[in-house]
Amino acid sequence: MGKIYVVGLGPGDESMMTSQAHAALQDSDVIIGYKAYTELIRKQYGHKQIIDSAMRQEIDRCKACLDMAGEGKTVALICSGDAGVYGMASPMLEVAAGAGTDKTEHGVGTDKTEQDAGTDDIEIEIVPGISAAMSGAAVLGAPLNHDFCIISLSDLLTPWELIEKRLLCAVSGDFCIAIYNPSSHKRHDYLMKACDVMLTVASPDTICGYVRNIGRDESSYELCTLGELRNKEVDMFTTVFIGNSQTRIMDGKMVTPRGYSKKYK
Amino acid sequence: MGKIYVVGLGPGDESMMTSQAHAALQDSDVIIGYKAYTELIRKQYGHKQIIDSAMRQEIDRCKACLDMAGEGKTVALICSGDAGVYGMASPMLEVAAGAGTDKTEHGVGTDKTEQDAGTDDIEIEIVPGISAAMSGAAVLGAPLNHDFCIISLSDLLTPWELIEKRLLCAVSGDFCIAIYNPSSHKRHDYLMKACDVMLTVASPDTICGYVRNIGRDESSYELCTLGELRNKEVDMFTTVFIGNSQTRIMDGKMVTPRGYSKKYK
Repeated sequence: MGKIYVVGLGPGDESMMTSQAHAALQDSDVIIGYKAYTELIRKQYGHKQIIDSAMRQEIDRCKACLDMAGEGKTVALICSGDAGVYGMASPMLEVAAGAGTDKTEHGVGTDKTEQDAGTDDIEIEIVPGISAAMSGAAVLGAPLNHDFCIISLSDLLTPWELIEKRLLCAVSGDFCIAIYNPSSHKRHDYLMKACDVMLTVASPDTICGYVRNIGRDESSYELCTLGELRNKEVDMFTTVFIGNSQTRIMDGKMVTPRGYSKKYK
Repeated sequence: MGKIYVVGLGPGDESMMTSQAHAALQDSDVIIGYKAYTELIRKQYGHKQIIDSAMRQEIDRCKACLDMAGEGKTVALICSGDAGVYGMASPMLEVAAGAGTDKTEHGVGTDKTEQDAGTDDIEIEIVPGISAAMSGAAVLGAPLNHDFCIISLSDLLTPWELIEKRLLCAVSGDFCIAIYNPSSHKRHDYLMKACDVMLTVASPDTICGYVRNIGRDESSYELCTLGELRNKEVDMFTTVFIGNSQTRIMDGKMVTPRGYSKKYK
């Protein structure tokens, strides 16, 4: 039987891939992923079978992996960042377990789900990668260097009310926050809406930053306050960072202290 | 003038280091870090000057980096996981900016902090790595595959009341949670206390898991419910994962769905 790797490529630049990710791609007969990601590895792995998949075809992509693995092939399902942070790890595991059928939709969850015929012997290995929260943080300084949350503003799969609730809980707990998918063509005012929710609790002076095109040639970043962030235009290739009440700008870097200087003073 | 890299080595196994981390170590004259981490790179970088530093000497370690960089050396300050997730990125940037002195302790934070004499031209580059939340999640399946928080239970630098508040906010927002430093010799009952806080909001049937010694030879994991987790003994080398209300066990893996199966049904 075949094997499926779900591989997080990191932010885009080859230098931020792990050796484990390279080994998984090297070991695979087929590499499949959304076109923007297959482009990232085509130069080095062009001798492999590479399948470009369209956006929003996530479930079909997972089914294709299962089919190919069922034929004995080793398949790498690739995504950007980390495979388990808004990545393909859970859809792949769900599809393999037969999720989406009635028996699992209403399952109690703690029982081992029955497997679909034919997927019994397919091993699925998740290969972690550098997520935009980590690579973007490194660009800004150390914005997440204490307890933090990662929240996506995309309401394609999550009700907006739940997103608002999470934003509110995150600022109520004085967490640092990394915001993924802050904007898109259809959702140009979502970051403003999110800032307005956070501003009901957090100070408008809260230090924020955002990084565009992390790990690509045209990467850029900016620091501002939460009050200013509200009126910024960002695109879908941007990751936004909200500091906690202790976050400061030091030498042009966004730094959330761990507390050593206070402790050992 | 010299340069300082703050390098996240990942969970321990060399295969989960990035090429960027290797390049930073290769470029450095001196590698400095807590002994457990210098051991990880000694085999490959033993020809470099390696300085072992004791635990809890974080600030001294950063000062030593500044001194060496001031002499024109290139220094790699290493830590496990990601440099910006409870890592050395923020202490290093704080020390370089002269934090801990009165002028920054009471600074308004949005102004550029004055630099100490002699550190002006020292470049500090943060090199991200795979944090235990990502590498541990890959072992369990996809436990963090929706909005999530990372919370440390160590109260060395954070008041326990704030940790409890964050735990409460995290479960109130139905976040997935990764818990770092769940235990130590002096804090053997902290995970139990944390579970009791979370159980005031979250169901005792909430799916949980924990991974010990991630990325090492003797790695092991277990799945359980939040009610059961309360009575588990874990050590300081363990990372604990709390699911959200949608997290399920599928084929023996801990999976938090993104919602595709519901959306495209």
